[in-house]
Amino acid sequence: MPRENKDRRPSLRLKAVEIDTYRENVAYLHRNCSLYRAEGFQALSKIELHHDGRRILAVLNVVDDENIVGPGEIGLAEQAFAQFGQPEGAAVEVDHASPPASMEAVRRKMAGDRLSHEDFIGIARDIRENRYSKVEIAAFLVAVSQTGLDRDEILHLTRAMLETGERLEWDEPLVADKHCIGGIPGNRTSMLIVPIVAAHGMLIPKTSSRAITSPAGTADTMEVLARVELSPEELHEIVRRHRGCLAWGGTARLAPVDDILISVERPLGLDSPEQMVASILSKKLAAGSTHLLLDIPVGPTAKVRGMDQALSLRKRFEYVGDRLGLHLEAVLTDGRQPVGRGIGPVLEARDVMQVLEQDPDAPEDLRQKALHLAGRIIEFDPDVRGGQGYSIARDILESGRALARMNDIIDAQGRNPDPPAPGRLTFEITADKPGYVAAIDNYRMARIARLAGAPLSKGAGVDLLRKVGDRVEAGEPLYRVHAEVPAEYRFAREFATRDSGYRLSPEPVEPFIPMDF
Amino acid sequence: MPRENKDRRPSLRLKAVEIDTYRENVAYLHRNCSLYRAEGFQALSKIELHHDGRRILAVLNVVDDENIVGPGEIGLAEQAFAQFGQPEGAAVEVDHASPPASMEAVRRKMAGDRLSHEDFIGIARDIRENRYSKVEIAAFLVAVSQTGLDRDEILHLTRAMLETGERLEWDEPLVADKHCIGGIPGNRTSMLIVPIVAAHGMLIPKTSSRAITSPAGTADTMEVLARVELSPEELHEIVRRHRGCLAWGGTARLAPVDDILISVERPLGLDSPEQMVASILSKKLAAGSTHLLLDIPVGPTAKVRGMDQALSLRKRFEYVGDRLGLHLEAVLTDGRQPVGRGIGPVLEARDVMQVLEQDPDAPEDLRQKALHLAGRIIEFDPDVRGGQGYSIARDILESGRALARMNDIIDAQGRNPDPPAPGRLTFEITADKPGYVAAIDNYRMARIARLAGAPLSKGAGVDLLRKVGDRVEAGEPLYRVHAEVPAEYRFAREFATRDSGYRLSPEPVEPFIPMDF
Repeated sequence: MPRENKDRRPSLRLKAVEIDTYRENVAYLHRNCSLYRAEGFQALSKIELHHDGRRILAVLNVVDDENIVGPGEIGLAEQAFAQFGQPEGAAVEVDHASPPASMEAVRRKMAGDRLSHEDFIGIARDIRENRYSKVEIAAFLVAVSQTGLDRDEILHLTRAMLETGERLEWDEPLVADKHCIGGIPGNRTSMLIVPIVAAHGMLIPKTSSRAITSPAGTADTMEVLARVELSPEELHEIVRRHRGCLAWGGTARLAPVDDILISVERPLGLDSPEQMVASILSKKLAAGSTHLLLDIPVGPTAKVRGMDQALSLRKRFEYVGDRLGLHLEAVLTDGRQPVGRGIGPVLEARDVMQVLEQDPDAPEDLRQKALHLAGRIIEFDPDVRGGQGYSIARDILESGRALARMNDIIDAQGRNPDPPAPGRLTFEITADKPGYVAAIDNYRMARIARLAGAPLSKGAGVDLLRKVGDRVEAGEPLYRVHAEVPAEYRFAREFATRDSGYRLSPEPVEPFIPMDF
Repeated sequence: MPRENKDRRPSLRLKAVEIDTYRENVAYLHRNCSLYRAEGFQALSKIELHHDGRRILAVLNVVDDENIVGPGEIGLAEQAFAQFGQPEGAAVEVDHASPPASMEAVRRKMAGDRLSHEDFIGIARDIRENRYSKVEIAAFLVAVSQTGLDRDEILHLTRAMLETGERLEWDEPLVADKHCIGGIPGNRTSMLIVPIVAAHGMLIPKTSSRAITSPAGTADTMEVLARVELSPEELHEIVRRHRGCLAWGGTARLAPVDDILISVERPLGLDSPEQMVASILSKKLAAGSTHLLLDIPVGPTAKVRGMDQALSLRKRFEYVGDRLGLHLEAVLTDGRQPVGRGIGPVLEARDVMQVLEQDPDAPEDLRQKALHLAGRIIEFDPDVRGGQGYSIARDILESGRALARMNDIIDAQGRNPDPPAPGRLTFEITADKPGYVAAIDNYRMARIARLAGAPLSKGAGVDLLRKVGDRVEAGEPLYRVHAEVPAEYRFAREFATRDSGYRLSPEPVEPFIPMDF
């Protein structure tokens, strides 16, 4: 190697730089490195590193601190270093890089072309291998969101994301799953559906996310009660024993391309329906699900605002699901307000346990919605007659079997010995006139709960005291806000006082409708 | 401050991290920082830092090395730290950031809307203040390239880029400039036009770029003869004394938004004509030019492939130039082959000096093209009669005044006492059949010269021995390649041997046509 290098460009010593650049390969060169000046590299240039037959693409950052990299070194951020797989000190050659081969397809998409399955496979592979910079990923996402994807392109993209990741195998003919497209605070039906469906004997290995922009994800709420960060082995063992789990899905490497796309999509505020379909279905199929019930809330402050939009989204899910062998049913649900009473991890966990414990104060809308959805999943069971699912689900809940199963799952995952309480700093927002609650703004309620500290402060959040259809008199409380920190209390109070988020009507309003309204 | 912080989220100590992330604000948090876990930040999240009434947006990188940042610290990369303007150790609060306000306009552009001048001003300001991440800039560029910009939008964008940067003032009624849209190797006419036009007495303060993807930029070639990195004061003094200069333009802060856009555009391979018009004209106007001659080479391997495309590009330049008070003339030139004989800094500098010294071996096409372009610029002079410019330019060249002026400029900038020679490792590529040279592939010749080591090795490059229209016999040499390093010699040889880049025709071919063919 040293001999061969004599008549080549000077090589640089490889160094690991302990910076996590989240699946973008970043390389660090010192500003006084001769190669940096000579090659006309600039910060942001894409470069290629070679050593011992291996090569890797990376985006360049220029360093002025010799403690990070010295003039004779080339640094690689954590994941790039791991992917390159060469030892520190290796003599690495560095060159300008060409864009990844599949960028040619991205350029065709920008020009308005339809892409083939092979195109999407090429793109997904190059993204998985970190050959795309964030900027190139953004170009792909914007091109897709602007030109749109027809339903076959959504199918190709879903399949490509699936084929470039790992896939769980459960060795069972029926693996049930449930997913909500999001946007409704307090919608913690999974924590009821899993124990009910598992108690019926069906396999439902549910993994969930933490909140990113919402006041609580299912993983945050379950964490009030039990440990959710499980190793793959623990997860399998719990599912084998109890037929279900409620774990955090962040550790699995399922559909990694989807994770990378989301990491760029989110800061851009891109949320195209095409991308949503491909993202959800690739993740569910990778998790080994065979049957999926999809919850699509519809309402003026939900993600899906109207019936036309809801039906067109449902058809796209069905089209792709059918062609990938996933039994999929999508139900449209009432999204005019948050579900249940609590918003925020502790308050939502309280609602869930009240339903399971058949507390007379349990929120009826959460109970009804969970029973309807669980019933539809139970009807995936070939031995259950159509229309019987709901009453089976109700029997399981009322017999206490759902509660028992939930306690088994909590104990198996690791019960929290000291669950947190609702935040002790509270205020109430009252009605300024009499009327019937016509709508409760989902965005605004989520925002108030986050300002109050959720999900960071587990006990922070909003407790809804009136729901759609309820009659209120002027001066009666609409909701109570809980916080743990004085500053957050003030932020939430200031925001909630400006606009309560409630819309009142002089006429009576139809209360919550569980499904397919 | 410490008292106010008591009931707020914990603050972090500010630290400067000496990494240059090229005008993207990057912040560094240690993985064990409590805020990082609690807030649900992820690498790539956009965060906002507050201190003492100032705020700054940055993209997050997560660090595992306490020497870079510790768990109680928040690091900022160089430019972000400078922009924030707060001292190291300051107690900084950190929060999730909202996207910059003007992203709303970018989203409208994605949806196909036309943007107003105010929209572009908002975007340009936010980009200049580094409120955009690279990913957001990519979204803007792809949206623009996909939806297109009408000519008024190009005007708005140009004006916005101009209004958000500094602007040079020369205090003269006529400041001449010349620009080529690029893509033709060896096209070093600026180094002839500047001394001719300056000798005529017109002001022509030319700044040029270094090669990025080409084998030589004007700055690289001039650097063979003289120093090109001049301070603004030096540049002004030289221009005042000699009416012209040939400097590197990289140090000025003209149209900074354009620089940022280009840094994202280039790795994406985006090169939309709309963007090109806005980029070139904002830079020229910022440099204080009042009169611009624009060289648009047309040919099958040039940037502009055909007459339709060339005329439409010219009209866009004219439309925007007219409305911004820039006297602009765009000429279409012969782009069927490289200009002159040499490709690479030393060989191109040799061609230029041969023309100035009236060497009988001087490449006639470079001489003719430079005289025609210089003539057109001289006709910007109100005292010169239309059609007289060419003969004035020729007189200046033939009288030796152009050479004298070039020597004055070289001495003023700082003559290179020991100019490098052509690379000593050479090989020739010969014709495999007899015929007339019909075309010489610009891309391929540039590639061979770069493989041979240009512009890194100043003496590396290609010397064209036959040009379009020349008759060659089988076995006669077409061009000679110079390299300085054995490995580069081999790379270039291997590539050139596969395909010479020359197209021969059995029929006679019209030789080089200087302009408006």
